[in-house]
Amino acid sequence: MPIVTFLPANKRVEIDSGEDLLQAAAKANIHVNASCGGEGTCGKCKVLVSGNRVDSDSAGRLSETEIAKGYVLACKTQVFKDLTIKIPVESELLAKRRTKIKTLTSSLDSWNEQLAAFKVDPPLTKRYFELVEPSLSDAVSDLTRINRALKREFRVSDVKIDLDIVKKLPDILRDGKWRITVLALVEKDHVRIMRVEPGNTVKKQYALGCDIGTTTCSAQIIDLESKRILAEVSEYNAQANYGDDVISRIVYAKKDKGLHLLQTKVAQTIERMIKSLLEQTQVEAKDIGFAVMAGNTIMTHLALGVSTEQIREAPYTPVFRVAPMVSGLDIGLKSLKDAPIFFYPSVASYLGGDITAGVAAVDMLDSEKLTLYIDIGTNGEIVLGNNEWLLGCSCSAGPAFEGAGVKDGIRSIDGAIERVVIEPDTFETVFATIGGHLPIGICGSGLIDLLAELFKSGAVDKRGKFHRDLDTARIREGEYGWEFVVSWAKMTGLEHDIVITEVDIDNLMRAKAAVFAGITTLVESVGVTLDDVQEILIAGSFGNYIKVAEAITIGLLPDLPVERYRFVGNGSLLGAAKAAVSKGVLDRAAEVTRSMNYLELSAEPGFMDKYVSALFLPHTDKRLFPSVHGG
Amino acid sequence: MPIVTFLPANKRVEIDSGEDLLQAAAKANIHVNASCGGEGTCGKCKVLVSGNRVDSDSAGRLSETEIAKGYVLACKTQVFKDLTIKIPVESELLAKRRTKIKTLTSSLDSWNEQLAAFKVDPPLTKRYFELVEPSLSDAVSDLTRINRALKREFRVSDVKIDLDIVKKLPDILRDGKWRITVLALVEKDHVRIMRVEPGNTVKKQYALGCDIGTTTCSAQIIDLESKRILAEVSEYNAQANYGDDVISRIVYAKKDKGLHLLQTKVAQTIERMIKSLLEQTQVEAKDIGFAVMAGNTIMTHLALGVSTEQIREAPYTPVFRVAPMVSGLDIGLKSLKDAPIFFYPSVASYLGGDITAGVAAVDMLDSEKLTLYIDIGTNGEIVLGNNEWLLGCSCSAGPAFEGAGVKDGIRSIDGAIERVVIEPDTFETVFATIGGHLPIGICGSGLIDLLAELFKSGAVDKRGKFHRDLDTARIREGEYGWEFVVSWAKMTGLEHDIVITEVDIDNLMRAKAAVFAGITTLVESVGVTLDDVQEILIAGSFGNYIKVAEAITIGLLPDLPVERYRFVGNGSLLGAAKAAVSKGVLDRAAEVTRSMNYLELSAEPGFMDKYVSALFLPHTDKRLFPSVHGG
Repeated sequence: MPIVTFLPANKRVEIDSGEDLLQAAAKANIHVNASCGGEGTCGKCKVLVSGNRVDSDSAGRLSETEIAKGYVLACKTQVFKDLTIKIPVESELLAKRRTKIKTLTSSLDSWNEQLAAFKVDPPLTKRYFELVEPSLSDAVSDLTRINRALKREFRVSDVKIDLDIVKKLPDILRDGKWRITVLALVEKDHVRIMRVEPGNTVKKQYALGCDIGTTTCSAQIIDLESKRILAEVSEYNAQANYGDDVISRIVYAKKDKGLHLLQTKVAQTIERMIKSLLEQTQVEAKDIGFAVMAGNTIMTHLALGVSTEQIREAPYTPVFRVAPMVSGLDIGLKSLKDAPIFFYPSVASYLGGDITAGVAAVDMLDSEKLTLYIDIGTNGEIVLGNNEWLLGCSCSAGPAFEGAGVKDGIRSIDGAIERVVIEPDTFETVFATIGGHLPIGICGSGLIDLLAELFKSGAVDKRGKFHRDLDTARIREGEYGWEFVVSWAKMTGLEHDIVITEVDIDNLMRAKAAVFAGITTLVESVGVTLDDVQEILIAGSFGNYIKVAEAITIGLLPDLPVERYRFVGNGSLLGAAKAAVSKGVLDRAAEVTRSMNYLELSAEPGFMDKYVSALFLPHTDKRLFPSVHGG
Repeated sequence: MPIVTFLPANKRVEIDSGEDLLQAAAKANIHVNASCGGEGTCGKCKVLVSGNRVDSDSAGRLSETEIAKGYVLACKTQVFKDLTIKIPVESELLAKRRTKIKTLTSSLDSWNEQLAAFKVDPPLTKRYFELVEPSLSDAVSDLTRINRALKREFRVSDVKIDLDIVKKLPDILRDGKWRITVLALVEKDHVRIMRVEPGNTVKKQYALGCDIGTTTCSAQIIDLESKRILAEVSEYNAQANYGDDVISRIVYAKKDKGLHLLQTKVAQTIERMIKSLLEQTQVEAKDIGFAVMAGNTIMTHLALGVSTEQIREAPYTPVFRVAPMVSGLDIGLKSLKDAPIFFYPSVASYLGGDITAGVAAVDMLDSEKLTLYIDIGTNGEIVLGNNEWLLGCSCSAGPAFEGAGVKDGIRSIDGAIERVVIEPDTFETVFATIGGHLPIGICGSGLIDLLAELFKSGAVDKRGKFHRDLDTARIREGEYGWEFVVSWAKMTGLEHDIVITEVDIDNLMRAKAAVFAGITTLVESVGVTLDDVQEILIAGSFGNYIKVAEAITIGLLPDLPVERYRFVGNGSLLGAAKAAVSKGVLDRAAEVTRSMNYLELSAEPGFMDKYVSALFLPHTDKRLFPSVHGG
């Protein structure tokens, strides 16, 4: 039986002789666009045959030049012998139509560029000392000997230390022949000795940066000597099994032992990430001096095992804004044992450490430009300001942008449709999936693309309703009302068509309306207009994928020149990494929480009106979106 | 069989009809002086018969008046019926010949007088707050709400708290209906929240003061509301089973698990004292907010479980001078759990926290008078100075003053001979014992008395040797060389005579010579004379009993007017109690350790000469002791 090898995925699959390449791709769980469902009419399933030429009935849909180069239509090409097939990189194809936006953190190199700007001045730092050996004329205590050196080095008047370390001092000093390395926590007016090691271990200085997301956690290990991120890893937050969003976590935490369980789960998630980072980098756990973590207020509470009950009940008070400093063991991170863990402080129950981390990381506090920082997830968190003031708010967008509450919505996992193009006349639909796999659903950024394309192609009107008289089988009345078929069942990894329904579109519109109303309410509350905003920073793991032009098309983001937009990427993680390198960043975050005012949108009289006005594509007031056409 | 009741001890004893009162007293373990051993010749065993008159052959040794009042000689009075007998308070008799010296801490009342001088401003303090209930317009976090109140109350910019307490906040605040009491640790630039309780518990504010002595530990519970010591308790340091003095403890600590064992033993001792104090006062353990402890450098190291190994080897460095702050649990004090424990800092390996506590307690730092602070135990620790400077030293006196290294020497326990009077012509010897019990040995203060009396009565010469030609059976050549019989065997609770030998006297003279040489070396090192010393403070548990005139007689203390002397009593415990009431005292102790210079006597060229010169009674240079006659 013939074997087909698909490039660039390099997947091999054995098929029955005479099956076509589209069937072969499906067997290999490889997505090949075939808008028509394999009827040979759309001409989208173009693939390139390497080596052996094959017979194919591709004429009519492909040009002579293409055929000469070896292109065939997958649905029209039967396989009788071994073949190697290249799939055109669809994402490239789809990307052609995307506006390029500057991204702060597109690769580890760009992360390291960000860090390179800083002087290394971490909250915990190692220093090597060659102490004078005691003598009768200088018989001060072991601790005094170390303290003298530390006071000189750090120019502080006070040095603190815990009993456990004191107990080990005499041996360490003498084993090291009075040459020691001290890991010190530098505070305002004193330093605290966190560890003492014999000899010079200054080169082994690592820190952990960690973003505790409601859905996904990410962590990086940072070499403080070279100021480089050595590795990054992400994991689903294991709490997610007990509730998709923060509200359901709060509800679960109220159950008997619920809080303890959720704390344990996120600790296990972080611990697994640390283990993976250590394996990848061959760094020893003991050489990670400390960790900086950022998460929203609920994630931070749960990570510390602190009750979130009051956050959900008026007047929505968290237990703390600034987390107490803890050690790894305090929160069940065995790898970090006695390493201190710093959490970014929050501003309010729904404006958390993930946002203060992001705001601190992007230097809004130093910028004279009026800047809008937007993190879109289940909640849209929005901060407006510059080096003189900061105002933040949070609006409940609902889970639609994270793929929940949408019939075929899924998270950003392999097989998720993340980019969509719809041809205006034929409604031919091509898409790219994460990992190039067969589609299994649509993720948040795919939904924004899809809604924008539906609107621009004229499939939906400005109320988000389908034009029901269009000549396409893709628009139909289904079990859940009117819907649009994004992918036919046989082109998927599923038993059914992947669709978007009018109900789904309703949910997406409510979500985008909430965010846009939040943005405009915030901006107007300080007496400026959208056009006064000079820079717009889009953050969030979701922000990595969002397309600005499409987000503008659906009225999620304001219709401002794309040059004003920048992607932050995971601002929370960026803040964690930056604070690990420079303690000034954490101090800055403390400033952020102190100086930032919080606007409670539900208490703002204009908010509901703005929300209702935004429940259209792109908006009831078309003057707000001059660049958008469609519907 | 007749029953004899002895007053004031109120001890009843049944005896054989016809036995004499001396035998009855012995059976009751009651000491009645009978210098002659019951021969009826010395006339010292005078007792008073209450109620029933008895026949007695007491004539000749008692006056008519005495006989008329009911006095009899115990050795000459046979008992045939029930009797009640009063023993003249011998201590009163003996005390007649003592100089009255002002004592700072003769009773709990005098302790409380000492404390009364202070404004209550303890290192940990409780404050009651009525917080504003959260509302939508004031929805700050629980912790921020508390911090706001604390920052206002204590005028600090920073408040710290541990995770464990944060976890309990939401319930405590709501249980207390936003009325709470905070136990706060007040530090230089911030306060730390140590406990939060619902409601107003300000009245329940107690602290523990503790002196960790090498031999004896003492503790007090202090009511910070009333500024009164509620109870005091002492216990032998259970470490003593593993070595009498600090050197033998250091040696034991070097053994496998030795350090751990010694730490555990002293923790058990302290824990027992706490339990006893709690029982006596009905205070609950949780209401003891903190403890202040003082001990010499070795005791402090061992209490914290820190190695003392290096203290014994040149250049004699301790591991720390300022102990890290610990909680009760850190050192195995379950009753104190999370209560912080402050230790007085030391100056050097042999000038410890017991001395800094004493010096801080007696306000040397505030006094313009040139003051000498002397704590005599196994080591004599001596501090000289005033409000401008402090200089300290430590001299190894050996254990003689603690009753060790002396044939019939014992610690200050029941039955220890603590006061002695010897008649110059007859060498009749009367004494008082601790508790009025039959004598079982001689304690330190008894030895000083005895040596002074031996010298003044002419029994020994100025080299400390017995005049061997005297007409008394008390001076004789025994198994251990020449000796003086203090108490005949049948007058004791023992099988043998209680004696002092020439070897014992040698040991005592070496001890007193070391202390006196230390004092004079210290004084001369700063270019002043003994006469320039305006105040002499005698501390130490031993200091409670020492008699200044007798100590001068043997050349232990300088021959200065007794008005310049004051007894501190247990300066270490006094320092602990004062610091518990006012954190300024601990700050002062930190100043003491910083400002005090340490004079290493062994490195002082004049010290050995001074020591040798002092190996006489009272001294080779009689001009130094103009008031002393004898030998």
